[in-house]
Amino acid sequence: MQEFREWGHKLIDWVADYLDSPETHPVLSRLQPNDIIKALPTQGPEQGEPMERIFADFERVILPGITHWNHPNFLAYFANSSSPPAILAELLAAALNANGFLWKVSPAVTELEAVTLGWLRDWFGLPADWFGLILDTASTSTLHALAAARVMVAPETRDDGAPQGLIVYCSDQAHSSVEKGAMSLGFGRKQVRLIPSDSEFRMIPEALAAAIAKDRAASLKPCCVVATVGSTSTTSIDPVQAIADITERENIWLHIDAAYAGSAAIVPEYRWLLDGCERADSLVFNPHKWLMVPVDCSVFYCRNKAVLRQAFSLIPEYLETSDTGVNLMDYGMPLGRRFRALKLWFVLRYYGHAGLAQIIREQIAMTRTLQDLIAADPRFEICAPGGLSVVCFRLRDTDETNRRLLESINAAGEFFISHTVLNGRYVLRIAVGNMKTSAETLKSLWEAIRLFESLVVKD
Amino acid sequence: MQEFREWGHKLIDWVADYLDSPETHPVLSRLQPNDIIKALPTQGPEQGEPMERIFADFERVILPGITHWNHPNFLAYFANSSSPPAILAELLAAALNANGFLWKVSPAVTELEAVTLGWLRDWFGLPADWFGLILDTASTSTLHALAAARVMVAPETRDDGAPQGLIVYCSDQAHSSVEKGAMSLGFGRKQVRLIPSDSEFRMIPEALAAAIAKDRAASLKPCCVVATVGSTSTTSIDPVQAIADITERENIWLHIDAAYAGSAAIVPEYRWLLDGCERADSLVFNPHKWLMVPVDCSVFYCRNKAVLRQAFSLIPEYLETSDTGVNLMDYGMPLGRRFRALKLWFVLRYYGHAGLAQIIREQIAMTRTLQDLIAADPRFEICAPGGLSVVCFRLRDTDETNRRLLESINAAGEFFISHTVLNGRYVLRIAVGNMKTSAETLKSLWEAIRLFESLVVKD
Repeated sequence: MQEFREWGHKLIDWVADYLDSPETHPVLSRLQPNDIIKALPTQGPEQGEPMERIFADFERVILPGITHWNHPNFLAYFANSSSPPAILAELLAAALNANGFLWKVSPAVTELEAVTLGWLRDWFGLPADWFGLILDTASTSTLHALAAARVMVAPETRDDGAPQGLIVYCSDQAHSSVEKGAMSLGFGRKQVRLIPSDSEFRMIPEALAAAIAKDRAASLKPCCVVATVGSTSTTSIDPVQAIADITERENIWLHIDAAYAGSAAIVPEYRWLLDGCERADSLVFNPHKWLMVPVDCSVFYCRNKAVLRQAFSLIPEYLETSDTGVNLMDYGMPLGRRFRALKLWFVLRYYGHAGLAQIIREQIAMTRTLQDLIAADPRFEICAPGGLSVVCFRLRDTDETNRRLLESINAAGEFFISHTVLNGRYVLRIAVGNMKTSAETLKSLWEAIRLFESLVVKD
Repeated sequence: MQEFREWGHKLIDWVADYLDSPETHPVLSRLQPNDIIKALPTQGPEQGEPMERIFADFERVILPGITHWNHPNFLAYFANSSSPPAILAELLAAALNANGFLWKVSPAVTELEAVTLGWLRDWFGLPADWFGLILDTASTSTLHALAAARVMVAPETRDDGAPQGLIVYCSDQAHSSVEKGAMSLGFGRKQVRLIPSDSEFRMIPEALAAAIAKDRAASLKPCCVVATVGSTSTTSIDPVQAIADITERENIWLHIDAAYAGSAAIVPEYRWLLDGCERADSLVFNPHKWLMVPVDCSVFYCRNKAVLRQAFSLIPEYLETSDTGVNLMDYGMPLGRRFRALKLWFVLRYYGHAGLAQIIREQIAMTRTLQDLIAADPRFEICAPGGLSVVCFRLRDTDETNRRLLESINAAGEFFISHTVLNGRYVLRIAVGNMKTSAETLKSLWEAIRLFESLVVKD
């Protein structure tokens, strides 16, 4: 254990130095495909190697292959960052190595999930009797919602198999995980209705109602509607109240994808983001997206615990227990369960509700300032209302010029931003969510954009 | 960052002390259901709290709620333990917080998976062109196998939806994740055929062939056979060669569940465990079960990368890339991807092939010694051949007496063992897999068993 102690201290100092100045690394890895594969032996070592050599290779080979999510200039996708207390909690979780598939194989794993998800449910103002569960990613959480919805609408699924013709609805701005979930579960892609969205990228409830009516007329079986609170491209918010009016009337499962924007609803003045969501059947939000928790940590809430159990419970003899603890394996697909609640608990306590709200509030404010700067420049146009921590914009020029602008910015190596397509046009996309990103960072980015604009347009 | 540094050093020392003497904690948590929930506030803190207080609560409230998987006397389920180099790698992974859904968002995440899974494939002697992917648990890996099998047999699943009547086969000793996967994916439980096993708990190939013939005759569609290499109850090994003869002839997907025993196949004299598996379509094994890697780390190999892609690939515009790197999101359900390969790489290098093989070899040898001791005592009977790191045995007495024996042993707090049911009888089950467990541990356990036997039988 002496060796662990020595290396542990070395690595803590290494991590502290790294988190102090992630900006000394290029934000986007400069490697080419297969560089790392080529740099490492094709066969594993026959004899053990000293930590010295392993860590030297970590720095020499692995580190250049990292795109630095901790870098303040990482502004692509949803730019989540980790946080110091969460990293310490992950160290403890790896050491304990508790695998909480049953209550008794570590009561703390099960019950700390219940406690932390209860705190968050309370901050969100969601119903106190909703059941919560931590999964790895939002794709998995949404898959759970679709599977539960199917068992509610077609209980024969569990024993006889899923009937055909079950239909899933989401907007044309919904995350690809909805379609992927439906595809993986055997609904089929053609059974996913992409409902048109309005000029602000929000699902049109009348179009949803019409699609459901059409499917019912064709003897198909509407099964699940997924409403998005904070879409991936533009952070648009579907009109959940109007959608819930429809799903309640039609007796269809309503799942809310708040994977990204859910976190913002802990800010009192953004609580409205979840308006109507208390009427839903399930909701996903990812603390690893915007709540300073490292990947992976996706929270899945479900109103009806019994349906979830009906969809997923199967207890073989070797997992039978005599205690009355809740066994989380009965409510989801995976059996093994890492102690993910520990990092969430550390973060919620270390920053507190007010502290987390302040971080998110400031990130929204600095994003708005950047958006105003871009909007004021006649060479550019803002392509979506925004309002949270993402700006969608483009040069008033061809798609090709915009694509070259993005590529120039990223190739220069100082910033990393991403893109999307809106109304058929190529759009640049800046996402703020990293604890190190400041108003200063965004000012420099805006300078860089204008510089590259002049170069790209001149070409 | 000063605070992180200070607390990081404190926690490294705490972890080192903990790993030095996990046996100072009771192996099985003594808490009652809801003890932790009651010990913590029902509302999250409004203001942030000092690390001091959070860590004090960790020790005061959480630690008593941990069942210590690191304890040498944890001998239940599959008694995996973590290892020092893996814990250090998890610290680094949490700090980097790389989320490898695309190659470019951290090439190292994608390519180190390819490198480490290549090393293991080579140690196993599996075909060099098999594609590998790290998922969270074996349940998820087997779910991927079933989904891929369905797309192979019924390619219309992707677009039109899964047809009914697709059949899955496994033995009556297969892990519950096969049935659960089939249930979740919409096959339906009745479409899972539990093929009888022989006196040594191995699937009977003739019964499999007969079941397939019967289903074909009924116009059903055989889809996937899951063969188990190391079953959960008894570590029995299905006759993979004979099963592969059938699946090849019938053109059915063959998936191998080697979640536990796969690790042993890196030991040269146990390489035979995977005989015939090179003929399979997919295979799962869990380094977090018997390869000194903390949970979660499940390896899923697949012969046909294209089918996996057909089952799971969907690329929205905001995730389009121009590079030629492999994007792992195209081959599985989850989009987000934690840097799990880092801990695997640290472990494979630190211990080396020979070092890991030696650990497993010794665990098998000490388990055999224990089994011989039990077999030599006329009051007990051995209930399965064993041969790896699990012993199944019972008192030559009623189920009730055996149940009381188990409960007495676990209630005493020194050891934690589990149970199963074989041929309708309650059986005690001891599993060795923890790095701290020694021949001495098992000798003490045997003494404890005999002591409790005299108490239970006297009662």
